[in-house]
Amino acid sequence: MRDALSWLQASRESDIASLQRLLQTGQLLTAVSELVHQLQRERGASNIWICSHGRLFSAERVARQQEVSACLQQVYQALPPAVAQPGYSRFCHLIAAALQALSELPALRQQIAEGTLNQPAAMAAFNQVIRTLLNLVFEAADTASHPDISRALIALFSFMQGKELAGQERAIGSAGFAAGQFSTDQRSQMVALIAAQEQSFTTFHQFADDQARARWQPLAQASRDIERLRRIACTGGSGEASGALHWFSLLSARLDQMKQVEDGLSATLMLRCRTAIELAEQQAALPLTPVQGESSFALYVSGADWLPGAATLDSDGLAPQLGRSVLSLIGEQSQRLQQQADELAAMRASLDERRIIEQAKHWLMQQHGFSEQAAWQALRKSAMNQNKRVLEIAQAVLAVAATLNT
Amino acid sequence: MRDALSWLQASRESDIASLQRLLQTGQLLTAVSELVHQLQRERGASNIWICSHGRLFSAERVARQQEVSACLQQVYQALPPAVAQPGYSRFCHLIAAALQALSELPALRQQIAEGTLNQPAAMAAFNQVIRTLLNLVFEAADTASHPDISRALIALFSFMQGKELAGQERAIGSAGFAAGQFSTDQRSQMVALIAAQEQSFTTFHQFADDQARARWQPLAQASRDIERLRRIACTGGSGEASGALHWFSLLSARLDQMKQVEDGLSATLMLRCRTAIELAEQQAALPLTPVQGESSFALYVSGADWLPGAATLDSDGLAPQLGRSVLSLIGEQSQRLQQQADELAAMRASLDERRIIEQAKHWLMQQHGFSEQAAWQALRKSAMNQNKRVLEIAQAVLAVAATLNT
Repeated sequence: MRDALSWLQASRESDIASLQRLLQTGQLLTAVSELVHQLQRERGASNIWICSHGRLFSAERVARQQEVSACLQQVYQALPPAVAQPGYSRFCHLIAAALQALSELPALRQQIAEGTLNQPAAMAAFNQVIRTLLNLVFEAADTASHPDISRALIALFSFMQGKELAGQERAIGSAGFAAGQFSTDQRSQMVALIAAQEQSFTTFHQFADDQARARWQPLAQASRDIERLRRIACTGGSGEASGALHWFSLLSARLDQMKQVEDGLSATLMLRCRTAIELAEQQAALPLTPVQGESSFALYVSGADWLPGAATLDSDGLAPQLGRSVLSLIGEQSQRLQQQADELAAMRASLDERRIIEQAKHWLMQQHGFSEQAAWQALRKSAMNQNKRVLEIAQAVLAVAATLNT
Repeated sequence: MRDALSWLQASRESDIASLQRLLQTGQLLTAVSELVHQLQRERGASNIWICSHGRLFSAERVARQQEVSACLQQVYQALPPAVAQPGYSRFCHLIAAALQALSELPALRQQIAEGTLNQPAAMAAFNQVIRTLLNLVFEAADTASHPDISRALIALFSFMQGKELAGQERAIGSAGFAAGQFSTDQRSQMVALIAAQEQSFTTFHQFADDQARARWQPLAQASRDIERLRRIACTGGSGEASGALHWFSLLSARLDQMKQVEDGLSATLMLRCRTAIELAEQQAALPLTPVQGESSFALYVSGADWLPGAATLDSDGLAPQLGRSVLSLIGEQSQRLQQQADELAAMRASLDERRIIEQAKHWLMQQHGFSEQAAWQALRKSAMNQNKRVLEIAQAVLAVAATLNT
């Protein structure tokens, strides 16, 4: 395979193969988005059931479990075959972790039913399952090879993360209102969850298309009712005894509305994958036939045409493929790949922020026995006290961690 | 494929597939390193031939061409099949560009023989061919999935880059000494090439193993003779007429010595690929059989074991695989992958520097018609004048470029 043209063609086809894998991943993530929503609903119902000592939501709990099971089947069906591929190790690993977590659901439900798990432990277990599913979305966003699709994935991931934090807020609020009071710990957790939600939705907004932004616009602010209850919760006010159900139904309605925005994001993701595949296939179908006998030597010696961007593209981005030198074909592909790489690099910088914060949390959990929420609160509190961003504190923590490890 | 174990296994096998692709790439790069060396020798001989108006190195030029042809066959044989794979698009593209450049060699030689290319144009054409080959090494370093191998690739790339800059220095020096004087432009090119070499070798040193560093140690400083001629060249002194051949032979000997260090780097790369494959295969061969009937639920609810790092590893890094919960198997894999990702992220930061400088150069060439060398000199001069690093100037250039493009 010595000739440039067959490698140009392999490059085009590799691009299509990447896109097809992304499409498959997109289908999986659409099913995951649905499953996460149903798990959030089951978590909510289980929470009320635990908090009411089994008096409330007995039937709801069973119904939610059945809905989760149905979604689980969809996820199983959307799973690609477990086939080894170079560069696929991490994604396979995350699927294994998610499947393992999901397989523990029956045991979790049984322990809840038997009353052997207290409310915080039960919630933490649900949070973990959902976390393993969100990790799949993050990994997809982090490894996508096309800027447009990567953008859609970052918007989807950030939105799902924000929605999950809203779900956790619902659980803590329900527990507090049901108990008739909020502990200091619960109060600070609520404050942290509200702040983290805002951060997630800001990232979503940054990467979403206009349509998704427009759908989000009326929901961006929580309602006056929710804000009033949040205030009561965060200031430790005892609130009404019926507050729990009121809070729960307000937040549940909000989560359902969020899900509709999320569905739009999944649809955008799938559309972008399909459009990109179509475009790439059109390109790849055009024959790579350079002008017979023409040497691109002159261009080559001048050096200029070697550079990405030197080849002229038609205004619609589809360059005419016939009667061109091999060199200009290479130049064109080069330009496209370079542009993609530049855009992706810029986007990943925003994911790095999450990665750094996660790593710092992880270190605090590992080395200092913090729970996840406690680790996050520690970072956040430290940031507030020092008037810095959480990112800066996380970077400082990692610098210390690196020093201690060497 | 619903079960976690089959995905754990797919993750292990994907890792092996990545490593095998790296091994194949390593074989290609070993052949590329040899080809680059021979191209550098042909460029050198052609340069003396042009500068002496065909009086010198006529036979050498032919001999060098034959050696290049032999190496070219090795590269062709080391090429993997041009088969499409997800995530492989960029590497295929770079192979296409390199093959295209190599296919233009006969035309380049003919034009040199006919005297239709002047010395700078002929050198620029050789530089371009070598550049497309170095791009392959850079891409491999940038995408390698294993820290150890990535480190070996960065050391190899940086060293090859430094050696290539030394080759370009040889060409400019030969031309200047042959002409009996150096133009202002040639002088500043020499200065820039010497500085850039030092930078490359510093990066090499940072990533190389002790053995390679020890081999490099006696070569790290150019000899007193070379430094004397450099001084004459850079200060525009006219030097002796026979200076060209003396300079050429001193620098050629230095390049040959460098090649021996480079061979050690290629050998290290291959060894690391083979060792990593062996280790990964040993791991993958161990059966993934969790304790029958054991539930990892308790661990799971506690949350702690979900985290990478929570599973205990044997001191030799090979964990016992029998009688363990699925969860601890996942935890272990998670730890390994996380550690790899962290190390890789740290290493790539150092590659980003080169990427940013290349992008800035590229923009200057595209938008302002600079030659590559002129672009590099502009960045460097600006850095010196402002007492900043070239990286900072490049970042500033890109910020301006981004502003103008929007």
